[in-house]
Amino acid sequence: MTGEKLPSRSEDFPEWYNQLVLKAELADYAPVRGCMVIRPYGWALWENIQQALDRRFKATGHENAAFPLFIPRSLIEREKHHVEGFSPELAVVTIGGGETLPEPLVVRPTSETIIGHMWSKWIHSYRDLPVLMNQWNNVVRWELRTKLFLRTLEFYWQEGHTAHATREEAEAETRQMLDIYAEFAASEAAIPVIPGRKSEAEKFAGAETTYSIEAMMGDGKALQSGTSHFLGQNFSRAFDVKYLDPAGQLQYCWTTSWGLSTRFIGAIIMVHGDDQGLVLPPRLAPIEAVIVPIFRHDAERAAVLEAARRLRSELVQAGRRVKLDDREGLSPGWKFNDWEMRGVPLRIELGPKDLANRSCVLARRDRPGQPGKSVAPLDELPAAAARLLADIQQSLYDRALAFRQAHTRECRTYGELKAAVETGFAVAFWCGGSGCEATVKEETKATLRCIPLEPAAASGACVVCGRPSGERAVFGRAY
Amino acid sequence: MTGEKLPSRSEDFPEWYNQLVLKAELADYAPVRGCMVIRPYGWALWENIQQALDRRFKATGHENAAFPLFIPRSLIEREKHHVEGFSPELAVVTIGGGETLPEPLVVRPTSETIIGHMWSKWIHSYRDLPVLMNQWNNVVRWELRTKLFLRTLEFYWQEGHTAHATREEAEAETRQMLDIYAEFAASEAAIPVIPGRKSEAEKFAGAETTYSIEAMMGDGKALQSGTSHFLGQNFSRAFDVKYLDPAGQLQYCWTTSWGLSTRFIGAIIMVHGDDQGLVLPPRLAPIEAVIVPIFRHDAERAAVLEAARRLRSELVQAGRRVKLDDREGLSPGWKFNDWEMRGVPLRIELGPKDLANRSCVLARRDRPGQPGKSVAPLDELPAAAARLLADIQQSLYDRALAFRQAHTRECRTYGELKAAVETGFAVAFWCGGSGCEATVKEETKATLRCIPLEPAAASGACVVCGRPSGERAVFGRAY
Repeated sequence: MTGEKLPSRSEDFPEWYNQLVLKAELADYAPVRGCMVIRPYGWALWENIQQALDRRFKATGHENAAFPLFIPRSLIEREKHHVEGFSPELAVVTIGGGETLPEPLVVRPTSETIIGHMWSKWIHSYRDLPVLMNQWNNVVRWELRTKLFLRTLEFYWQEGHTAHATREEAEAETRQMLDIYAEFAASEAAIPVIPGRKSEAEKFAGAETTYSIEAMMGDGKALQSGTSHFLGQNFSRAFDVKYLDPAGQLQYCWTTSWGLSTRFIGAIIMVHGDDQGLVLPPRLAPIEAVIVPIFRHDAERAAVLEAARRLRSELVQAGRRVKLDDREGLSPGWKFNDWEMRGVPLRIELGPKDLANRSCVLARRDRPGQPGKSVAPLDELPAAAARLLADIQQSLYDRALAFRQAHTRECRTYGELKAAVETGFAVAFWCGGSGCEATVKEETKATLRCIPLEPAAASGACVVCGRPSGERAVFGRAY
Repeated sequence: MTGEKLPSRSEDFPEWYNQLVLKAELADYAPVRGCMVIRPYGWALWENIQQALDRRFKATGHENAAFPLFIPRSLIEREKHHVEGFSPELAVVTIGGGETLPEPLVVRPTSETIIGHMWSKWIHSYRDLPVLMNQWNNVVRWELRTKLFLRTLEFYWQEGHTAHATREEAEAETRQMLDIYAEFAASEAAIPVIPGRKSEAEKFAGAETTYSIEAMMGDGKALQSGTSHFLGQNFSRAFDVKYLDPAGQLQYCWTTSWGLSTRFIGAIIMVHGDDQGLVLPPRLAPIEAVIVPIFRHDAERAAVLEAARRLRSELVQAGRRVKLDDREGLSPGWKFNDWEMRGVPLRIELGPKDLANRSCVLARRDRPGQPGKSVAPLDELPAAAARLLADIQQSLYDRALAFRQAHTRECRTYGELKAAVETGFAVAFWCGGSGCEATVKEETKATLRCIPLEPAAASGACVVCGRPSGERAVFGRAY
């Protein structure tokens, strides 16, 4: 429940984040180091994210499945780069049913290997392709420094896996899913993202190319918010995933994988939140509108509550996710603060005066105080609420985009880059060399977030070494 | 894909089951002993089960959350009966990030312990109660004899957990959830079940009372298809889950838990399936109706496919889950068999003659051959399909109920019981003694499935020892 005040977001962003996650009851610390419990309010947010993405995955022909939690260690070791990348992060089951297992079982950190193994049994002919799969599941990576939602030992995500007959088709799939993530982030979460390609140093262990969407948080830092990998034939060769082409020749498949996780909840908190707490985008908010009844004595109470219940059913009828806060013994002001902290986009205030006027007061979460208030006639409430929620959704996006633009600098010199990453993103020409990338990381703590897909390549001088460069990269300090 | 014929269901039920699960592409064996992969067709069935149950859980005030996969061994050991019951079945992580862990982590076999631990942090006052939670997740139990869907090391389920201020409220919740399972089984899966109380020997490790729904499979054996546990104060005492009552006194909570798992898919297969394959209840079937176009040459092909696509969109508009099988190079007859094997409730055949008559042929999966065929005018297809699907749903239920009734005997003597459990269920008076229960199990391989909630208790002589008894029990051989 609501207790003391949150730390100020501008003064102590990390502490504001931690305390807000706990206080808004999104998540809590589990008794195992680095693990979290996602509480009902946080999980409802995740369910809305799941539905928004799942709809998009199914509309593009993907089917959900469930592959096992445990992977024999020998399977993990089949793809050289993959095992190198993941080995340090594995949780391993060595005892089952009271006995030491003959072969240790890895708790999946991701499922390319076990899926490759199964595909080698299922895929035979070009007629079986493409295979377009996804799963919603939990994975485990033994991280050292953890933070609620952003980096936890166990986390929840979806991992899509597809197999294709040609390189072109697999590359198109990789880009299609990146586009879906970017569109989802913008239109559902009101988060503008930069879709781009990762450098060699930052790509997925076993991928030929990794793409990501990168978002700017409220403190100017970057959060990688979803990734899409073109795996080439690396996994199909390691797991012998082959098909007979129309000419009767055996060919290796071309595969992809792509994922978005509960870390995205961290992005929503850090992009939109303010000193009062969460600010949730209406399209994903577990509660779009909360009705707070206002009364002084029992006679008022009965009339107001009855009207509030009627309003609630009208709004539910209209497809809204609404809560009526009829808790006893709490003042309206206390309730206002509580729901503000929990980020409910719209508050509907209803008291005896409003009832007499056949109207109610609407308060927008994204505009605190008087400027965010308006009055709506009770009969027009469902339409007024729908309009306001759409407007809030758009305003949140506009605000986040303006913030990112204000905190992104085109840098020609290394000095400019160094200054820019103190408060946001630096966009600069980069020669493509991992040496220059490492220099930036070491000296500025900023990493190469991605090589944006747009605008198209141009030419200039590498911001570090000055060599001629054909592409710009985005640098930023990252979560 | 469809290959050789299935074994006959009546001649070799277990082999029919195994081969059907593989052939219908519901699931496959994973590379880890006793684990399975749930393939897209099987997972789509599970998603429909999830939605049907989740709707019911939310309508009764439950909220979803996510508790961690890993439980410190010391937490599991806090409730004496619980640890005794589950110890032999645990999978244990001993290595994380390359190092031996100071305390081994158990992969959850169920979550009462970790949830109890978290509740002790969250629940303080009677105002915090009731707590009504559920999670959809994976759990691991190290089983020795496994079978696809019915018993696997890892399985998927929902586990509901609730905490209440009084014994009465918790008992009512336990029974409410049992009722929801029974109603779900009947109206969504077309499976009649017997809701009842488990004996002491068969109850959940740590429960005060366990209830279950028991279904009869097509071979006369029983499958426990869902359970609801009244946990008394066993877990709240072990985990210190207390609340301040209105009088300011600290009280222990009363808790419940209840679960239904992917084993329910096994029930659907074994209750409704036949020699041709699956027979899925329309309300849960991933595909309610399949359209098979019939043509001999290209001119016919174009016209038929165009009409078939139009039909498909009309049916989708009407809210149906429809597939148009436009695969090339496969005969209509082959497709008929394929979709029969996959259990699609309704087949829509559309050829040039049908088109000329502005009609199509509808074939019911539950009534093979000519008796299950009818003709519907194309303009009335959505309504006709809806009617037929509702009728199929009801017929499946009626058939399953009639089968169970025909294979259930009221038994007065031990000899009658012995004979009855050879082919189905025996209902008999039982003195309540675990000795008599054990005798039946040892001598007949039948277990005491449950003490049915209805009809109400009567009196008679225990079928084993002849002592006076106040209740009847159901005995049967079980999966």
